[in-house]
Amino acid sequence: MENFVHDIPTKLYFGKGMISHLEESLKSFGKRVLLTYGGGSIKRVGLYDEVLEILTKAGFEVFECAGIEPNPRVESVARGADICKKEKIDVILSVGGGSVLDCSKAIAVGAYFNGDDYWQMVLASNGSQKALPLVAIMTMAATGSEFDSGGVISNMAIHKKIGRTFTFPAVSICDPCYTFTLPAKQSAAGGADMMSHIMEGYFSRTMNADLSEAIEEGILKSVIHNLPIVLQDPTNYEARANLFWNSSIACSGIPEYGKVSSGWPCHAMEHELSAFYDITHGVGLAILTPRWLSYILEKDSSITPRLVKFAKNVWGLENKDETELAKAGIQALYDFFVSVGIPMHLSELGIDETHFEEMAKSCTHPWFDSFVGLSEEDVVCIFKMCL
Amino acid sequence: MENFVHDIPTKLYFGKGMISHLEESLKSFGKRVLLTYGGGSIKRVGLYDEVLEILTKAGFEVFECAGIEPNPRVESVARGADICKKEKIDVILSVGGGSVLDCSKAIAVGAYFNGDDYWQMVLASNGSQKALPLVAIMTMAATGSEFDSGGVISNMAIHKKIGRTFTFPAVSICDPCYTFTLPAKQSAAGGADMMSHIMEGYFSRTMNADLSEAIEEGILKSVIHNLPIVLQDPTNYEARANLFWNSSIACSGIPEYGKVSSGWPCHAMEHELSAFYDITHGVGLAILTPRWLSYILEKDSSITPRLVKFAKNVWGLENKDETELAKAGIQALYDFFVSVGIPMHLSELGIDETHFEEMAKSCTHPWFDSFVGLSEEDVVCIFKMCL
Repeated sequence: MENFVHDIPTKLYFGKGMISHLEESLKSFGKRVLLTYGGGSIKRVGLYDEVLEILTKAGFEVFECAGIEPNPRVESVARGADICKKEKIDVILSVGGGSVLDCSKAIAVGAYFNGDDYWQMVLASNGSQKALPLVAIMTMAATGSEFDSGGVISNMAIHKKIGRTFTFPAVSICDPCYTFTLPAKQSAAGGADMMSHIMEGYFSRTMNADLSEAIEEGILKSVIHNLPIVLQDPTNYEARANLFWNSSIACSGIPEYGKVSSGWPCHAMEHELSAFYDITHGVGLAILTPRWLSYILEKDSSITPRLVKFAKNVWGLENKDETELAKAGIQALYDFFVSVGIPMHLSELGIDETHFEEMAKSCTHPWFDSFVGLSEEDVVCIFKMCL
Repeated sequence: MENFVHDIPTKLYFGKGMISHLEESLKSFGKRVLLTYGGGSIKRVGLYDEVLEILTKAGFEVFECAGIEPNPRVESVARGADICKKEKIDVILSVGGGSVLDCSKAIAVGAYFNGDDYWQMVLASNGSQKALPLVAIMTMAATGSEFDSGGVISNMAIHKKIGRTFTFPAVSICDPCYTFTLPAKQSAAGGADMMSHIMEGYFSRTMNADLSEAIEEGILKSVIHNLPIVLQDPTNYEARANLFWNSSIACSGIPEYGKVSSGWPCHAMEHELSAFYDITHGVGLAILTPRWLSYILEKDSSITPRLVKFAKNVWGLENKDETELAKAGIQALYDFFVSVGIPMHLSELGIDETHFEEMAKSCTHPWFDSFVGLSEEDVVCIFKMCL
């Protein structure tokens, strides 16, 4: 087992009706609240009205930063941070999915940033900068942003999508009922996202960190079981709740404790796809992961035991031929993504190979794919396999 | 899934050499340190000298509260709290196992207690009282006290051993190397303790909290795998590290998230044994658990599916007869405890039935064993099965 540091100060209220803790969660920080949200789905489902009623009754002064994008832009960070500075905001309340919360984390740091080049601020953020306190109400089970300090911000003008650490939410409220109205496409993409968060850590050379392995395999099996249920029965509380808690833990770092990090190669490659084509993060990850696995298995057969464990423990497969078994596990993953309706070819998203070389150049760095080293040429091959 | 609240602010440094973070962990709290420890084993292994050297070099003023008992007494709480008040201590540094840390948590609350009846303070503690900051260096994998706010304090004069919540360590340092010198008996009792922390939650009516089930079964399997290794090879780092991280998570509450609590009946019964006979907590739990399971399976066959899951997923057993399979799982647990050298009869510890009725009266309360309700008579029967 490798050394690790656990340091997650977030208080998490999980379950039905936990919005009852909203007022107490905000009030110790002050009275001036910046409410951040996305494209208005929280208005359609009535959550916006519910939140505003609680805040108004409790005497908070509410300012708004709406319209945060699915791949949140640095321009939204700037807009939110400027409101914080101008209105002397005490606490940020993020209501939405991971994109809104990622952007809100960057806004929380931006509120103390001296300057107006917020892209430089994003690039320099490492979790140690001063930040405004942040409370999150989550409406989607996917990124796990509610239980980590990370955020991914895009600068479309220069085709960059960058992950950095900003600040932890002080409090996150996760009510599975808020995910009942999530469209099937987003539920599926969210499931792929949380599976990817696990698989990025699972595919490591470290095989003996028992609890991490159990958590990783447990979450993968739970998503495989529950995602098809919510696609058939969107208001199934038990399935939504399991997916939600899986997603919160999946990106917390906990499932990787004691393991050598793989460098999260699929995320690095996917960020290039989103930066150039603004595609849904979870869809990009679903397309990339089985191709990446096939490619690295071909390149380095020493990883076969890890893929055999994946095939056996996650998919319940058996085969005396270890290479065949490893391949069957990858195929099972691919088939699962197909079965939940994810488009599994980049060409279906209107993407061709125009920018593959530029993207490959941009995503390879010294710690990129420490599981099986990959060159720019390797990455181009993987992108081509995804067409 | 049931609602839950996650709220663990402790920063945890896990792994070899993590004592390098001791100075930075203490210094933000002040200069006056109360060093708490037990019977001197930390002196024998050189850890006392190592800690004192770090503290002295860094300019801390060190006061000591030594001799904290394996079942820590309220008298030790009083002694430590009085030093904190008299010497205006800024931060407590606990070096030892769970007993030293449990006592240190109560001392941290006691430092702000107006009065000198510390037993009343213990009884009233609920985690909301003001407390001194606390840093822990753990030398044993067992109680998981490094990652929760709970502590168990004994008042032998009135035969009471009581668990309450006091305060979380601000920082816990867990270096598996510190557990290399732990005698086999204590390693085995520690393993039984962490298994019990899991089993108290695992045996619940809730079957659909996927991640919690995966964590519970993962930790049980890991202890079953690694405990025999450390008994043969005490300096096996990988096995010691897995046991240590298992123990930290096992008592954190995380493995029970989303489940109806069982009321921790074996702990309630064991606290009576320790309060009357001062036995090792883990040994008492190992003796009680298989007898409790046999008794409740006989009393309420509706719990058979849960015990079947235990037999299959934890012990890898198969049998078409579900009752037989359930019983085989309990037998496997009993045989495992025997195999690691735990005395499995109370008579071996010099305990007879003299106080069983008094103990049964004391441990039954409204939320005692909500998994299968047990009366005082039932508890007496279980104690008798343990003779």
